[in-house]
Amino acid sequence: RYSSYFVTLRYSSNAATNCHFLFRPPRLAGGLVFKLVFSNSGAYAGGALQREWSAASWQYKIRERNMNPAEWFSEISDELWPGQCFSLKVKSVLHEERSKYQDIKIVQSESHGVVLILDGIIQCTERDEFAYQEQISFLPLCCHPNPQKVLIVGGGDGGVAREVVKHPSVTEVHQVEIDERVVELSKQYLPFMACGFDSPKLRLTIGDGFEYMKQHEGVFDVIITDSSDPIGPAESLFRESYFELAKRALRPNGVICSQGGSFWLDPSHVRSTLDYCRKHFPRVTYGLAAVPSYPTGQIGFFIASLNPETKFAEPCRTFDEKEIDQMGLRYYTTDVHRAAFTLPRFAAKALYE
Amino acid sequence: RYSSYFVTLRYSSNAATNCHFLFRPPRLAGGLVFKLVFSNSGAYAGGALQREWSAASWQYKIRERNMNPAEWFSEISDELWPGQCFSLKVKSVLHEERSKYQDIKIVQSESHGVVLILDGIIQCTERDEFAYQEQISFLPLCCHPNPQKVLIVGGGDGGVAREVVKHPSVTEVHQVEIDERVVELSKQYLPFMACGFDSPKLRLTIGDGFEYMKQHEGVFDVIITDSSDPIGPAESLFRESYFELAKRALRPNGVICSQGGSFWLDPSHVRSTLDYCRKHFPRVTYGLAAVPSYPTGQIGFFIASLNPETKFAEPCRTFDEKEIDQMGLRYYTTDVHRAAFTLPRFAAKALYE
Repeated sequence: RYSSYFVTLRYSSNAATNCHFLFRPPRLAGGLVFKLVFSNSGAYAGGALQREWSAASWQYKIRERNMNPAEWFSEISDELWPGQCFSLKVKSVLHEERSKYQDIKIVQSESHGVVLILDGIIQCTERDEFAYQEQISFLPLCCHPNPQKVLIVGGGDGGVAREVVKHPSVTEVHQVEIDERVVELSKQYLPFMACGFDSPKLRLTIGDGFEYMKQHEGVFDVIITDSSDPIGPAESLFRESYFELAKRALRPNGVICSQGGSFWLDPSHVRSTLDYCRKHFPRVTYGLAAVPSYPTGQIGFFIASLNPETKFAEPCRTFDEKEIDQMGLRYYTTDVHRAAFTLPRFAAKALYE
Repeated sequence: RYSSYFVTLRYSSNAATNCHFLFRPPRLAGGLVFKLVFSNSGAYAGGALQREWSAASWQYKIRERNMNPAEWFSEISDELWPGQCFSLKVKSVLHEERSKYQDIKIVQSESHGVVLILDGIIQCTERDEFAYQEQISFLPLCCHPNPQKVLIVGGGDGGVAREVVKHPSVTEVHQVEIDERVVELSKQYLPFMACGFDSPKLRLTIGDGFEYMKQHEGVFDVIITDSSDPIGPAESLFRESYFELAKRALRPNGVICSQGGSFWLDPSHVRSTLDYCRKHFPRVTYGLAAVPSYPTGQIGFFIASLNPETKFAEPCRTFDEKEIDQMGLRYYTTDVHRAAFTLPRFAAKALYE
């Protein structure tokens, strides 16, 4: 197998020329003559140049393109995204443990700040978590004319709570997270998200979201389910019984929203969950957020309303620039809300036709 | 460093139970007793279970989470996306060579079909290339009331040509690609894209796009630049002189569109290119496509018009379902066009304020 290298060369007579090349050195040792094929900067302006240089007149450093697995965290999943993988370079592992429910790992990455990893899957990175939290919160909240009581199922990192309590009409937020350790570790390592737990509007219960919904009928205006992926502990959240329970826990005209995976990975899975949801709710849709550190760079949300008049793409509640500023939103705007329901044609066909 | 494994265990007395666990085995050898901590399937339905099993009663296979670099292509770039990396599992390398301009590699991937890689950067995958090609073509074409003569700079794989010739008002497409080998290899290995070269509307020139524009003043309605990334051979395409040349090559009210990178990676780079462009065009914007196999999962396009009345988000030319069907579009629709210019708030601020 041919091996390629990145080489940064700086010609000693001209410090300003710092060129990047990709080439195949037959041998690389100081003083040896090697053949170097390179393009002028801006190949459109000139042809390729082929010369022989003495290595002695260059400073060079070489790095193999292979990633050192000791330095990188690679998010491999043969079940969820076979054949593709996203990796982050790790500065240090801040914490790891096996909780009662899952493998928890928190790392300091080189490019994405602090990263929370559950069962080997990236849950959020400090760099782009806001995109996910704002969309999973404000899309359903703004599809309800007056969301006062909100239930969050999961969301142990606190990010969804942080966003939900910002909405001006929300007075009470109940949150049920099964894994206490995620909450405790988020408080320690992800304070930019766990700050959501500090709101006086919030009541946190450690327990099973299914049980909690069973015991609270007709109580909530909006239920947001911030789960991990549909394989593993959160599997049941993607089944029909979940939508049934959620429906019963809602007040009239209530709205639910739950993490819905990416149609780029498996449109048929998204479709079948939408179909479950349609059995219980008169209005059902799938909205989008762009989140670069998630596989495919996009994640979707199942949103359903008990109100047959709901128009998801036209929010009941709109915010002007000043309100958005006051809430400190970095992703969501009323226009972003409207655009979140426009899917590429193949996806719209797979999900709705 | 702690090492984690994926383990698939099947308990011999019950073939239907096929569970996936993540755990840390102190030792793994047939017959040894090891401690196994695992959750029931659907952790929300029950607690965790802790038991000791004899390994002899299980069949198990173990795979390290580390990727074998001989099986994966990893798209590392310390310049363009330091600290993060997308990888594809490779079935076979179909071709590799060093052309006059760049390193060309074509692989058969396990999950994304055939993949074209230039200088170590993924240019397109069979699985999602349509998203890029349709957006870079139809966004500018539909922002022009009557695009007849189109110039494509770059685009050696043929994908943009394939889309541009579909537009009903386009009569002539001129394409200038600098690297003949990309065209030849695409015809051989990427026929689903290179089919664009077969259109009777198309005239292909092998040469320098800058020179070509200099020699063709006031000729084109739309110029589309399908380049590689802003470091390497395509660097000059992101500079001011490019927009000056493109402006001169346009007819009155002409429109240009060029690959514009992702604001998730470097909003200041996108902003400075937009600022170059604003010096020469009265109307300038940045439109989006979701392309999962590109870093961040999104890519943008600089679109500029000489017509000060242009409203990018409201296309001059709209297509109904039947027309979209006839053109075989899988990503673009008139609604997708309208939504492509709504950016997350932080990006809109970075690019436009």
